[in-house]
Amino acid sequence: MNAKIQEYSSLIEENLYRYFKVALPQYETLFESMEYSVKNGGKRVRPLLTLLFYNAYGKGDVLKAMPMAEAVEFIHTYSLIHDDLPCMDNDDYRRGKPSNHKVYGEAIALLAGDGLLTAAFERISSWSLAGLYDAETAIKAINELSVYAGSRGMIGGQIIDIANENNPDADYETLQLMDNLKTGCLISVACALGCIVAGASDDLIDAAKTFGEKLGLAFQIKDDILDVTSSLEKLGKMTGSDKDNNKSTYVTLLGIEKCEELVKQLTNEALESLSAFPNNELIKEYAGYLANREY
Amino acid sequence: MNAKIQEYSSLIEENLYRYFKVALPQYETLFESMEYSVKNGGKRVRPLLTLLFYNAYGKGDVLKAMPMAEAVEFIHTYSLIHDDLPCMDNDDYRRGKPSNHKVYGEAIALLAGDGLLTAAFERISSWSLAGLYDAETAIKAINELSVYAGSRGMIGGQIIDIANENNPDADYETLQLMDNLKTGCLISVACALGCIVAGASDDLIDAAKTFGEKLGLAFQIKDDILDVTSSLEKLGKMTGSDKDNNKSTYVTLLGIEKCEELVKQLTNEALESLSAFPNNELIKEYAGYLANREY
Repeated sequence: MNAKIQEYSSLIEENLYRYFKVALPQYETLFESMEYSVKNGGKRVRPLLTLLFYNAYGKGDVLKAMPMAEAVEFIHTYSLIHDDLPCMDNDDYRRGKPSNHKVYGEAIALLAGDGLLTAAFERISSWSLAGLYDAETAIKAINELSVYAGSRGMIGGQIIDIANENNPDADYETLQLMDNLKTGCLISVACALGCIVAGASDDLIDAAKTFGEKLGLAFQIKDDILDVTSSLEKLGKMTGSDKDNNKSTYVTLLGIEKCEELVKQLTNEALESLSAFPNNELIKEYAGYLANREY
Repeated sequence: MNAKIQEYSSLIEENLYRYFKVALPQYETLFESMEYSVKNGGKRVRPLLTLLFYNAYGKGDVLKAMPMAEAVEFIHTYSLIHDDLPCMDNDDYRRGKPSNHKVYGEAIALLAGDGLLTAAFERISSWSLAGLYDAETAIKAINELSVYAGSRGMIGGQIIDIANENNPDADYETLQLMDNLKTGCLISVACALGCIVAGASDDLIDAAKTFGEKLGLAFQIKDDILDVTSSLEKLGKMTGSDKDNNKSTYVTLLGIEKCEELVKQLTNEALESLSAFPNNELIKEYAGYLANREY
């Protein structure tokens, strides 16, 4: 992996836990629980995209975009904690470690998710009040984030997922809408937030969203492929789980070969939307890495 | 009740459902579920306080404060939906009607809560982008709301509540900290948001918070009294439930007489903090109404 991307990854890890300083011992467990799930992170795709899009247009220190990156990762983490709860996917493991509610119990896991979701908006607004970027920038970012992570975005996608969980006949359009909302929205807004804090035009912000949407769908189809082909060790969760769940996936609908083609095509379409960014090499490299990953 | 307060109550009811226009039939149920719980409202204490504090300092139409009032009520409603879930208080009824998860199932109730929490920040930011108030005002409001409703505020209080739910020996200090966080924080920030959108000074905002904290505690002690004395019909939930839960309450710790005194004393302290507001008569009247309510 490119040294600059690795540097950004390290910066994210260094800054992601600043929120978890506990003020009172009486609610220490809540903060432990939030930090547990944030620490058990994956590839940090979303916060990395925020920094990469800032870098592709913005001037000066990439740390200016860090509160946005933190906010997106907090929202991603909360959605995973709530997704794993028994009333949702009932997953005991997340990335090879016990899921939040298996360690802390369901009540604390529920509240840890609520806490992370709320903290996302606290991070962005606090750093605006501290002068890192102006209030107009912060409000624009908060509005995009709340729309894309909200009921007409990510949460709407989760509802469609629930409605189709025992539907092996869900068609391609349904899967695509679900994934555009459930996965694509947060990836899109992660890209957009990097542009917003860099002061980019609305046209560029839209281009970043298009990139995120295409990449998000490629990412999800790749996930479905890996769900079938990868092994437990590599992925850290039970593979083949979608099939066990009697779920319609891109692979069951289109077959692996067609899916591999789609991943390539969507990645290329994503890359095309980058042409207006002056400094887009790192994003291109990262998109290629995501398309070719094996876990 | 005062005609102006009734007018504000009606305005709140008229404006509280603007968010629930559904964009896609695929996630209609989510919006139905959110609206169900917002419609099943109580006294609308928090949004009323937002409007009353705007009125006590602000100039012009009280509708300028409405997005803040909506946001606070959305957060209050999400906290009740999540509180009622089986992994939390496991309440089948809320205000005499089936709780959200009894109607829509646990998964949708969980997501409806997440959706309302996210929507609070969408409402405040959208109306700033639309020009109702400036971005500085909106960021200040969002920051206060995210802190007071977050892990060091309301959610922190819920954790303390969980930790003490089978502890009949919890002392007065523990109850007070829990209630200041769990109930007082959201009431305080409801008052503060009215001041912020009116452009009040930090001193006035602090005075509004002190009012909210005192009133919130009075409100909670009054709730404990009513929990013992009121009947099922009036309160819309099983009375005496705290006692059945083997829970320490202000009444079990101090007795009803001392509790009634405390409600009076705290209400008076709350009223004293209002002296700097030019136009505080309505707030005073409303605080008196809350202290003397019988349900």
